[in-house]
Order: sequence, then structure tokens, then C-alpha cells
Amino acid sequence: MDNTVLARRIEAAQRLMAERAIDFLFVAPSSDLIYLFGLPAHASERLALLIIPRTGRPQFVVPVLEQSRAAGREALVDIRTWEETAQPVEIVADIVRAAAGRPTIAVSDQMWSVFLVRMLEYLPDAVFVNAGGVLRELRMVKDQEELACLHRAAAMADAAWEEFVATARLTGKTERQAAEELTELRAKHGLEIHGIGICASGPNSAAPHHLTGDRVIQPGDTVIFDFGGKYQHYSADVTRTAHIGEPDAEYRRVYDIVLRANEAALAAIRPGVACQDVDRAARRVITDAGYGEYFIHRVGHGLGLDGHEEPYLVEGNTLPLRPGMVFSDEPGIYLPGRFGVRIEDAVVVTEQGGERLNHCRRDLTVME
Amino acid sequence: MDNTVLARRIEAAQRLMAERAIDFLFVAPSSDLIYLFGLPAHASERLALLIIPRTGRPQFVVPVLEQSRAAGREALVDIRTWEETAQPVEIVADIVRAAAGRPTIAVSDQMWSVFLVRMLEYLPDAVFVNAGGVLRELRMVKDQEELACLHRAAAMADAAWEEFVATARLTGKTERQAAEELTELRAKHGLEIHGIGICASGPNSAAPHHLTGDRVIQPGDTVIFDFGGKYQHYSADVTRTAHIGEPDAEYRRVYDIVLRANEAALAAIRPGVACQDVDRAARRVITDAGYGEYFIHRVGHGLGLDGHEEPYLVEGNTLPLRPGMVFSDEPGIYLPGRFGVRIEDAVVVTEQGGERLNHCRRDLTVME
Repeated sequence: MDNTVLARRIEAAQRLMAERAIDFLFVAPSSDLIYLFGLPAHASERLALLIIPRTGRPQFVVPVLEQSRAAGREALVDIRTWEETAQPVEIVADIVRAAAGRPTIAVSDQMWSVFLVRMLEYLPDAVFVNAGGVLRELRMVKDQEELACLHRAAAMADAAWEEFVATARLTGKTERQAAEELTELRAKHGLEIHGIGICASGPNSAAPHHLTGDRVIQPGDTVIFDFGGKYQHYSADVTRTAHIGEPDAEYRRVYDIVLRANEAALAAIRPGVACQDVDRAARRVITDAGYGEYFIHRVGHGLGLDGHEEPYLVEGNTLPLRPGMVFSDEPGIYLPGRFGVRIEDAVVVTEQGGERLNHCRRDLTVME
Repeated sequence: MDNTVLARRIEAAQRLMAERAIDFLFVAPSSDLIYLFGLPAHASERLALLIIPRTGRPQFVVPVLEQSRAAGREALVDIRTWEETAQPVEIVADIVRAAAGRPTIAVSDQMWSVFLVRMLEYLPDAVFVNAGGVLRELRMVKDQEELACLHRAAAMADAAWEEFVATARLTGKTERQAAEELTELRAKHGLEIHGIGICASGPNSAAPHHLTGDRVIQPGDTVIFDFGGKYQHYSADVTRTAHIGEPDAEYRRVYDIVLRANEAALAAIRPGVACQDVDRAARRVITDAGYGEYFIHRVGHGLGLDGHEEPYLVEGNTLPLRPGMVFSDEPGIYLPGRFGVRIEDAVVVTEQGGERLNHCRRDLTVME
């Protein structure tokens, strides 16, 4: 990523820090570090930390053996390396102490607690707050480049699903085997893979976050596939529900309700509408049809560098939608011990309303 | 995993908590949760937390839509579900407040800071410490089942490397393409894949944690492959260095020094020896050969449910080795702007000494 883009994002973060009286922003390896520093590093036991002060030049604290990762970013930050036998939180504490009396420090959500616990020791007077409040303002609304990546990722997931439906035979396979087959197609169509995703069959489909396992798929099963992957660090996230063999009337009814709920959420989207109203629009369809108690999760979550991020489409969230926000629209009905149906697309808020990023088939799908 | 095994581990943790005056152990989705609860859940913005009190029955706080993940564990813990519109840290705070005045709470290293920051708000009187100090005691020494998994994972990585060396042609490929080719073989030989690993070519090989990129591999390059994967949640981790075409005398000399350093570390291993002495044994070989300043990292890290875990083989760590510990032996020499060599095997401490888990070829390897 271009240093100009990163510099602009860092400045925007500093403006928000000033508004909110935050002295330092601590950005650990995570989506936040990709967003502000262009660096897709993994969290590990060796502290790497971008420290952004409210004004002035950021510093990047990094293990000496990972120093090369900051190559090309010297224009943005000062690099502070530490050797294997050093205690890096001491370096962090020195930077903070040099600047302020009783500093307020915003830490990125996904920083490991092992570091925050040490910081509490080294900086007993500091007040720690979550950086999410600052960073969501920046990350929630996607720019054109980000939208292009999200569209591309969605198209790859769509292509994988279309090919999967056209070619896969599920009966007799385990959930894991089925998920791996779809994973191969995701990779083939260009997605970077971070796990095999959810394949939930038969009664397992009634658990929204079922861990893909070794149950063998049988005729009469409902099978939910919830899958994604990354393109240039941006996520796809789509769910489709298939039925093995011809479904009965109840399945058809439930499927139709979930599809109408998905469409009702999409229709509710426009700038200025509160997040919770998108959830309510989908929930109303399901509740009116008598299945309200079986829709046990929010209707959606933001989508970007993280698979789940702000904004969350959930009762109680009065945040107004803005053009450029991207999130999932994924109502579901889950009948315990029996079956579940979920239909999920990624959508973007435009000036005119909501627009789907996913276009793969979502009519009632029968597979073998 | 068997509830009997998990119950034994939870009891062992409680004994250590009593010794160290820890009132609660907070275990978030991570390797710690697999170890103590058998649950390979991913961290997310929805709090899932195993709360182990010093005495008595643990509680598992879990989002209602992930409740099914605790199925079969009801004998071990009480399940406390929370609905989408709830604030789960309130539930956690209630559990803690019901029990103690000014509690000491050990939190697992990889818990996201977003939750710890909220806990600091809700439990201002609590003292938070790192759980690593308790859990490393348990996790460092592997039992027979764990050792079997680690052996199996290492054998799969070995098989992938042997096939890669026999079949791959690297010249003209990007690092990413080469790493993807090795990744396919890792998957073929049974490893679960969590990222493409490190492929560092030419001058990039002088950066120990180079991020695999788009540099094209050329004749005369040194290429470091650092790769692994999981078998039943246990990690493989091996590094091999290849040369494209016949190497010159300096490369041969450096390769020989690194190989001798690797062997010196292995030879230094036996129960009772301090961790730092294994590092010193390798470092002495490299320093005596005049390359000491170019060996810029510790000689190794523990290996188990995490790719990096305790014990760390590093200067300053006086912890004595015990039979059943498993860690990497991975000295390296890195000549900035030129090339690097690293040779890494997983090793286990036995009553007799150190034993390698990896057996794939590590003589000087020339590829095309």
C-alpha cells in the first residue's frame, strides 16, 4: 500500500485522538496494522507495536529479526528495534513516559492480553481504553480501492459456489470433506484461504456456528455452507443452504421465509437508517411467520479487513448507515435438533440504498 | 478429547492456582482453550470464556449461537450462554464478584485486549496477571498422546519436503508460487494448513521473518523455506535452506557452520540443563567461526498446540529442561543484503538427551 494513503489514515486517526483526548494509539499486528501501516504481520509472543502519538511522528517497535518488514515505511515512522534478550514493553513504557503525565492509551482490539497485562505493570498511571471507538470511524466507511477488493473477493466466492453446486456430490461425504472440496474451489478462483469454513449438516445446521466435523452427509439433510476467504486482505463472506434430495413442505416454507427476510433487510438499507432497523426489518418477516424465537443472532456484521467488524447490525445499535459501509445480510432460522437455514450476502450502502456484492444462486438448491 | 483428560488438566491448573494465590483463570479461545477444554474455537468479537475458579466447578461463558460447541462438556463445566444484545463482560464480572473481594485473575496470553479493557472497567479492584506462568508448567511437558501428534506432524512435514526437493523447479517462480507448491504437498501429506509459511529468496533470506512475497527466484539464490502445519492441533515446524545451482565456497562454509551449530544444540540437550545453555551451545559454534553478530535470534522455541510456546531457548532463561519438552533447534546466519541460512528441526527432550522429530534431508541441497 502507498505511503500517501497510510499517512492520510494516520493523520485521520490523530484528528480523532485529539477530539477524544487520547494520547497514544497502540496498534498491534491485526487488521488495524494493515489499515494504518500496510503490514499483514501475525500476532506472536514477540511484541511488534505501532505507537501513534496524538501529534507528531509514530514509532514502530519491532523485534530486530523482523525489522525488514518495516522496509519502505521509514518515511512514516521511526523504527525502534529490540534484541532477543530485551523486554520490549520497557521500550514502550519509555516512549509513553517521555510524553505525558497520566496518559490515555487506546489499544487495538486484537492485541494479546499478555502485553496489556505487562503494560499495566510498567505504566500503572495510564488509562487504557479500546481503540475500536476511534478506528471504527475510519474503517467502517470503505474507499474506492477497498470496495474494489471487496467486490473482487465476493465475485471469487460466488464463482466457487456456482462451480461447487454444479459439480459436487455430497451424500456419503463428511462435513470436513465437503468443506475441503469447496475450499479447493475457493482457492482455484483466487481467494486466499484462512480455514475451511462452516459446513453444518442435518441437525448440526441448527447451530449457527457449528464447527465443521466428521458427520456423514445423508439424503434428506439440510447442509449450510458459510465460507469466505481474502483478496488483498479484504474478506468475502457468504452463506448458502442446500438440501440433499427433494425437501418437504416445511423446509420450503422456512427457506422462503429466510430469503424474504434477507430481502427485507436489503430493502431497509439506505443512508441515515439506524443499524438496528436493518436487523428489525429481517426479524419482522421471521417473527410474523411465527419463527421469531429461532432467529437467534443479529442480522449482520461489517466486512472488510476483518471477517467481522463494525458496524454490527443488531438491536440497540442506533448508528446511522453511511454510503461505503459494507456488511453481511444473513438472517437464519434454526430449529434445534432438526435443521437450520441461513442465507448470507455481503451488501454495500450506496446513496440510493443497499446493493448486494454476492450474486451466486440463492434459490432453493437441491444437491445430491 | 476425553473429558477425563481435560478434568485432570483443569485440576492440575487449580493446584497451581492455589500455590500461586490466583483466584480465577480466564481462558479465551486459543491453544489454552484446546488444552483445558478441548475446544478449537477462534477468537472473535463475541466473548467466549472458560472461567476456572481456584476451587470448584468452572463456568463456560458462550454466545447462545455457539452453545453447541460445548456439547459433551456439561460434565466438566456449567454453561452460561448470553444473547446477542447482552454485555457478556457483565456476566463475567458477576461470577467474579460473587466469589472474592480483591481477586487475582490470570488471563490467557492470547485473549483479545478489547475484553481485558472492559474487564478493567467492570472489575476495578481485580489484579490481572498473565496465565502463562501457570499454564506453561502444564503445557511445556508433553504427554504420550501429545508426543504422538507432534511426531506425526513432523513426519508429514518431512514427507512434504522430500517430495518438494525431488520434484520442484524453483527458478522463475515467485516466492509465493514456490511456497504454494510446498503448501500443496504439506496438505497432501496430511497437515492442516494455517498460512503459506516463509519462502525467502536471495537477499530476502537474510531476514529471518521475511514475509513471503513476489520476488522471482533466480540461479545463484539462497532460498529458505520455513514451514509447518498442524496434525490434531499440534504443530510441525521445520526450516530447510536450498541453493539454486552450485553454491560458492562461502555459502558452503556458512551452511556447514549452521549445521554444526544445530548439532551442537542437539548435543547439549539433556534433563536439568538450562534452556539458555542450548542457545549458548549453538551460538558458540557460530561465534567461534566468526559469524556471531549474524545469528540475531534465539536458537529455539517450544512447539505444541502453538507454533511458538514455552520453553524459549534464549539467553537469560535458566529454566531446566525436563523430559517431554519439545522445541525447535534453529540456528541461522544472516548476512544483510546477501543471504541467510537456517536449519531447523523439532526436538524432544528424553531421559537420555535430545532426539530429533524431523528427519528430512538437511545436507547441502541444490535445486534448480
